[in-house]
Amino acid sequence: MRPWCRSCCSAGGTPHLAWTRPRPPSTRCCSPSPARSSPTTWPLGLLVYANQGTEEDFKELQSQNITLNGTIALTRYGGTGRGAKAVNAAKHGVAGVLVYTDPADINDGQSLPNQTFPHSWGLPPSGVERGSYYEYFGDPLTPYLPAHPSSFRLDPADASGFPPIPTQPIGFEDAQRLLCNLGGASAPTAWQGALGCDYKLGPGFRSGGNFTEGSQVNVSVHNRLELRNSSNVLGIIHGAVEPDRYVLYGNHRDSWVHGAVDPSSGTAVLLELSRVLGTMLKKGTWRPRRSIVFASWGAEEFGLIGSTEFAEEFFNKLQERTVAYINVDISVFANASLRAQGTPPVQSVIFSAAKQIQAPDPSDLSIYDNWIRYFNRSSPVYGVVPSLGSLVAGSDYAPFIHYLGISSMDLAYTYDRSKTSARIYPTYHTAFDTFGYMDKFLDPGFSSHQAVARTAGSVLLRLSDSLFLPLNVSDYSETLHSFLQAAQQDLGDLLQTHNISLEPLVTAVEKFEEAAAALNQRISAAQKDNPDPLQVRMLNDQMMLLERTFLNPRAFPEERYYSHVLWAPRHTSSIATFPGLANACSQAKDMPHGSAAWAEVQRQLSILVTALEGAAATLRPVADL
Amino acid sequence: MRPWCRSCCSAGGTPHLAWTRPRPPSTRCCSPSPARSSPTTWPLGLLVYANQGTEEDFKELQSQNITLNGTIALTRYGGTGRGAKAVNAAKHGVAGVLVYTDPADINDGQSLPNQTFPHSWGLPPSGVERGSYYEYFGDPLTPYLPAHPSSFRLDPADASGFPPIPTQPIGFEDAQRLLCNLGGASAPTAWQGALGCDYKLGPGFRSGGNFTEGSQVNVSVHNRLELRNSSNVLGIIHGAVEPDRYVLYGNHRDSWVHGAVDPSSGTAVLLELSRVLGTMLKKGTWRPRRSIVFASWGAEEFGLIGSTEFAEEFFNKLQERTVAYINVDISVFANASLRAQGTPPVQSVIFSAAKQIQAPDPSDLSIYDNWIRYFNRSSPVYGVVPSLGSLVAGSDYAPFIHYLGISSMDLAYTYDRSKTSARIYPTYHTAFDTFGYMDKFLDPGFSSHQAVARTAGSVLLRLSDSLFLPLNVSDYSETLHSFLQAAQQDLGDLLQTHNISLEPLVTAVEKFEEAAAALNQRISAAQKDNPDPLQVRMLNDQMMLLERTFLNPRAFPEERYYSHVLWAPRHTSSIATFPGLANACSQAKDMPHGSAAWAEVQRQLSILVTALEGAAATLRPVADL
Repeated sequence: MRPWCRSCCSAGGTPHLAWTRPRPPSTRCCSPSPARSSPTTWPLGLLVYANQGTEEDFKELQSQNITLNGTIALTRYGGTGRGAKAVNAAKHGVAGVLVYTDPADINDGQSLPNQTFPHSWGLPPSGVERGSYYEYFGDPLTPYLPAHPSSFRLDPADASGFPPIPTQPIGFEDAQRLLCNLGGASAPTAWQGALGCDYKLGPGFRSGGNFTEGSQVNVSVHNRLELRNSSNVLGIIHGAVEPDRYVLYGNHRDSWVHGAVDPSSGTAVLLELSRVLGTMLKKGTWRPRRSIVFASWGAEEFGLIGSTEFAEEFFNKLQERTVAYINVDISVFANASLRAQGTPPVQSVIFSAAKQIQAPDPSDLSIYDNWIRYFNRSSPVYGVVPSLGSLVAGSDYAPFIHYLGISSMDLAYTYDRSKTSARIYPTYHTAFDTFGYMDKFLDPGFSSHQAVARTAGSVLLRLSDSLFLPLNVSDYSETLHSFLQAAQQDLGDLLQTHNISLEPLVTAVEKFEEAAAALNQRISAAQKDNPDPLQVRMLNDQMMLLERTFLNPRAFPEERYYSHVLWAPRHTSSIATFPGLANACSQAKDMPHGSAAWAEVQRQLSILVTALEGAAATLRPVADL
Repeated sequence: MRPWCRSCCSAGGTPHLAWTRPRPPSTRCCSPSPARSSPTTWPLGLLVYANQGTEEDFKELQSQNITLNGTIALTRYGGTGRGAKAVNAAKHGVAGVLVYTDPADINDGQSLPNQTFPHSWGLPPSGVERGSYYEYFGDPLTPYLPAHPSSFRLDPADASGFPPIPTQPIGFEDAQRLLCNLGGASAPTAWQGALGCDYKLGPGFRSGGNFTEGSQVNVSVHNRLELRNSSNVLGIIHGAVEPDRYVLYGNHRDSWVHGAVDPSSGTAVLLELSRVLGTMLKKGTWRPRRSIVFASWGAEEFGLIGSTEFAEEFFNKLQERTVAYINVDISVFANASLRAQGTPPVQSVIFSAAKQIQAPDPSDLSIYDNWIRYFNRSSPVYGVVPSLGSLVAGSDYAPFIHYLGISSMDLAYTYDRSKTSARIYPTYHTAFDTFGYMDKFLDPGFSSHQAVARTAGSVLLRLSDSLFLPLNVSDYSETLHSFLQAAQQDLGDLLQTHNISLEPLVTAVEKFEEAAAALNQRISAAQKDNPDPLQVRMLNDQMMLLERTFLNPRAFPEERYYSHVLWAPRHTSSIATFPGLANACSQAKDMPHGSAAWAEVQRQLSILVTALEGAAATLRPVADL
């Protein structure tokens, strides 16, 4: 599981589940450090403290007249993606980056050895969060092509997305020795953490500390760039009625160090579901209507490589036939509540499943009723409901939603946020992510694992067995309205000054809404009407293919794999609206009228309108033109 | 109908067929001349004769030490596309281009008024072949977006594909006055034509001729760049069983001048088919299994604009559901034989139809048996069969095959090549393309029109009514083997010297062949087995979607709309093989080992292998992974 940022390269992996033939894509393995190839000399420079390494953080240091050129920047996790810290630093001439985990961000302030694991769930001082610093996903050497042994590979010198300067994660024990010995002015209040000293900015160490004043820090990284094999392991249950419709279910198998939580808590769920369904199959008591594909992906931690290469290899076949993708990576972050992310059409099937299953909590609530206590929102259509998060690119669902346009979801149990503000469970990606840690602190008794398995299993069965697909296309209308409203409120005035009207977008959203509602009515009518198999298939195909209509491979050519016009990354705008429009407006806002940047805003608007009109056309009665 | 080359912009069009709502895309209208905007002064220069205006022709002039800079080039039709003549000329500094039709190329040498229409089918001396000189297709201002009133439009200054210098077609009457008065050396033998004089190269006029020696020629073009409306007119017959599967049938409605042959001979067929099927529908005696969509496209002559904008507007819906596209543009070029172009899977349905229908010839042959007399080839699978031509981009099938990946075909009746070597029927795109011309010279009695209508109608009914689609995916194997063989023979040595193996391509072709043959066996078995509706649908979808698997929007980003890895244009190579590989090899052949050009060869090879492996995956049993 890769939160927030994107990542790099392949770890070795041996087949694990052995239902079907293991597939060995050859992938490029690079290090969690940004060094594309080992420099002949590692950077040596005065240390500065750069907070989270965001663009604003480096600007703050500049504003304090701190010379960044040739320095080593000590940064802490959070605020931006891993790779972005090095990218931002390099722009300011920084020569190397250290990244540590501050106890303020991960341990609710606890930093002493007797306050941390094994005495609590807190990260011990020596714990180091690894992770990929690669900017894209997929094998860096085979963009858009499967990483077969014979496939064309880029010269590593031409591969993009690797951080530009050496970067090394360290534990807060080491960070403390460095940071608490820095000289210079005090860092801003918001930059202070829980290492038990006043954080200074540097550059260089203070006099009278553990290090000689004026001495420099040397960053050396001992990762290697290697071509390694990794395997996806797939298992399929043939559908009885519609074998050419697939429900995909996946998790990765590779981990940093032990990986009891990430990914093995999810793999336990995958194995349990496949065991239960396999038992039913063998008994002959059940076979799903549609085919079910279980996938144990390789090399996720190096950049979703296994799943991305699979998506590239079977692009057309998967696009033609896949009903939905279910991802359960870390199944239990904590044991308070369900947490679900997905595209709008999957909300209904998750809600249905969650209502049917009892929460592990002793309070006798359903998973749904427990969930709504922790995460909820007010829907204009349904009233208060649990809130479904959006999919970014933190796990293997990314190629399925962004590149293939398949409705996707990610399910897990998670925190009670009133009890911790930890950025993520503290031992994430460290050597302390162990079975004992899970057993003692995250899910004693493993009842949250069971809750996730039951929920994901119910979703899987509903998707594979229902006569009509349990996807609600109308739930996209709410998202579109909210995106539209944000665009009108936050971009409307700017667009108006450049004579760009949002009217065609308003009309397109209305057309979508109308077509989706009408499709739902036709489905309701058909359900009462004993429809013939081809009528059912026709309506199901309209639901299945909706997500595909939002793909446009020419919309964001610079964003590798991202083709979904509603869920591509928003780079520079915090407005929850259509990403292409938001990004283009952000680029254009200070540019002159009539410039190429404003033409791009108009192009993005037309791409969006065309996609929504095309989506509405797919939902309308099939013989309407 | 636009032979060979690609084209430009939209003519005004009023709805013609009025079955359904007319759709008025706003499209950009430009001239058949290359002038993007009127120059303030039209070019004036010494005249040179440049044969067909190919790159080789201009090089020949250079080799004869003729200064081309600032000249006006007189060229004749043929050898290369219209626009290419101006592009090639401009590279050599030519200021303006005239294009004429030589009686050697169009009239089998006849050039006197009493030898030409109305005395024969020959083009009269005053006849001018119009045509688009635009390099791409679709509305030049809205690439990849439908030309809706609100759509983003390029600034005309940013639109590409227009010829760079003014160009004007003229008749051979005018050409003769110019060419027969030229001075300079005699043109090469192959450059001589049938204007009744020795063709000289120029530059400039000879002394003692009709023009003062040293006088210059002024090319002025009076076309206008205008935004005009054009309409597609659509009619649909709802399918009874699978309304969400479409068989598309289309022709354009716009013409240069009268257009009795191009396009009205095809429109007559379209109207007759719709009349007959409409009558059966109204009687209640018939309704097709699948939906049939009739389309009368606007603005074809300006660059397939109506059909391309339609494909852009309904991209997803058409890709999801369209079984095949049938194009009948000019239905009768001449009355000797059927001529069919298409992708391999449509061969079988055309053959079946052609065997069933009697040819108009008095010899009592079927259309098939007559056809095989004129155009045949030896198939390794079937023995001697009529030869099916390849689709280029000469009519409205182009967006369907190249951009949407829909199996397509073009049907017509055509010449007895033993009787004429005319480049095309002589009055093509001139003011003499009239009903009287058709009636008297091309199809007296209109029996060839009837033959095309019966053949196309039979193909249409077989595609829309058959339980199993009458497409034979295995027929692609023969094409792939022939492409592969050409690659091995003509590119193998070159590739080997750069350590590039064709082995992965060989394996991929074999996998395709095996999967296609196995699918055919499963279909045969199912036909005997009273299959359930969803089994039939599954097998049909595999056949329908095969053509889609050959699309890759990232394969040739510089080729607007062309995404089909087997049928994209081959630019610089005459080898009938995979176009991406051929083009890349042609670019790389003189480049050093390890250069970007050789990396592109490898990338193209991987794109091809991935597409073929993906195609095989789509054809295999659906629950195989």
